[in-house]
Amino acid sequence: MNFHVLTLFPEMIMQGLGTSIIGRAMDKGIISLEAVNIRDYTINKHKKVDDYPYGGGAGMLMQAQPVFDAWKAVLCKIQSEGSAGAKVIYVTPKGRTFHQAMAKEFAKEENLIFLCGHYEGIDERVLEEIVTDYISIGDYVLTGGELPAMVMIDAISRMVPGVLSNKDSGETESFSNYLLEYPQYSRPEIWHNKRVPEVLLSGDHKKVDEWRLEQSIEKTREKRPDLYEKWAEENQEYFIKKAKKEARQRKKMKK
Amino acid sequence: MNFHVLTLFPEMIMQGLGTSIIGRAMDKGIISLEAVNIRDYTINKHKKVDDYPYGGGAGMLMQAQPVFDAWKAVLCKIQSEGSAGAKVIYVTPKGRTFHQAMAKEFAKEENLIFLCGHYEGIDERVLEEIVTDYISIGDYVLTGGELPAMVMIDAISRMVPGVLSNKDSGETESFSNYLLEYPQYSRPEIWHNKRVPEVLLSGDHKKVDEWRLEQSIEKTREKRPDLYEKWAEENQEYFIKKAKKEARQRKKMKK
Repeated sequence: MNFHVLTLFPEMIMQGLGTSIIGRAMDKGIISLEAVNIRDYTINKHKKVDDYPYGGGAGMLMQAQPVFDAWKAVLCKIQSEGSAGAKVIYVTPKGRTFHQAMAKEFAKEENLIFLCGHYEGIDERVLEEIVTDYISIGDYVLTGGELPAMVMIDAISRMVPGVLSNKDSGETESFSNYLLEYPQYSRPEIWHNKRVPEVLLSGDHKKVDEWRLEQSIEKTREKRPDLYEKWAEENQEYFIKKAKKEARQRKKMKK
Repeated sequence: MNFHVLTLFPEMIMQGLGTSIIGRAMDKGIISLEAVNIRDYTINKHKKVDDYPYGGGAGMLMQAQPVFDAWKAVLCKIQSEGSAGAKVIYVTPKGRTFHQAMAKEFAKEENLIFLCGHYEGIDERVLEEIVTDYISIGDYVLTGGELPAMVMIDAISRMVPGVLSNKDSGETESFSNYLLEYPQYSRPEIWHNKRVPEVLLSGDHKKVDEWRLEQSIEKTREKRPDLYEKWAEENQEYFIKKAKKEARQRKKMKK
């Protein structure tokens, strides 16, 4: 998987992602990341890439020409390497909200181009011409597209086969099945007078798994009722099993 | 506003935020940012900060001791400077989802501490002891808490008075009133055979404002029907005014 980021702050992208899991995946050759400086493509002799918006208003806009030519250069390179093309993701509050299933989908692409806006935005005409996906990472306003692009690249990379050392890690974590993660404990057994829950020391894997699932369900119901509802809908049999088990226990108690 | 980030990757935080709007706000002294390396606080002689989770499972957990002591050091510093304390935000999928109104609220704090998890998470006991706010930036899984912390710091900083050069920029952008931004255009007037919409060249500010509002409403209705509904509910009078205006125009046409 090759990520190409069109940006005015290439060093931010390279430094911000180099230390994460992407760094290791890049070393292994599973992933490549290049940050292309849009400013390198302006034909303005003062290297300017922005200008005032027509109709007035605060701030400056990124102009169409340098953005288009930077994209064109990346596209040519991709095509010269044998690919037909690549999706262009524009990071904007005006987009669909990014979520885990989208990360999985994008992880199937061979190339992905991210376009990072800055200032007040980008001239609409170049967006119309090159962007295939308008995506937002959440309902908040940020200074530029760089941080959201890094967030998406991190989430997508984790879904590319071979990036996570444990094959399953990408799957067992929050959101892949709607449930939030259970609480975890590490050494020492007692810290600030707090004991690790007894069941985790029992060595009984079945009991540990049951406890963790219960904790996940409880946490999700408490903190994210919306996710809990989705999970409950798809896992009706869990509640039936649990009710049956409780009935058996009550019967035993009576005897 | 002082941001304190507890992390295993301090350089990622400082480099990733230094080039953005935060860099300028730091130079102006409106904002300060420090990244505290949790590893500096471990009492393990090999500088280890993680260990296996009790009960088994993939990956490693961050241990309670170094996290607690790093937090304690920051708290002492804050208190020695005269503040009572500070909220501690733990970046986790198990949290409330961050949004613009939250950014505004947090911007009122004098100090904010971000705790960035890594590996499979952090020992639950230290979270129970120090964390005040569990917050997620969206429904996707990331490698660590650093990128989400940077995203939140960027969004919160923009809401701190004096950070944005134009006093209004923070307010007029997407989400502050549910509407997405209108399309924008900059020089040249014609690019790739596409003209800037006539109204933006008219010099008639009232017409420009009307056109932009209409475009915002249209974009929002198309791309984010959920936000559109919220806006429509709070702005019933817009539709009444519009209907009246259209009625007047029809009357005129008849004459």
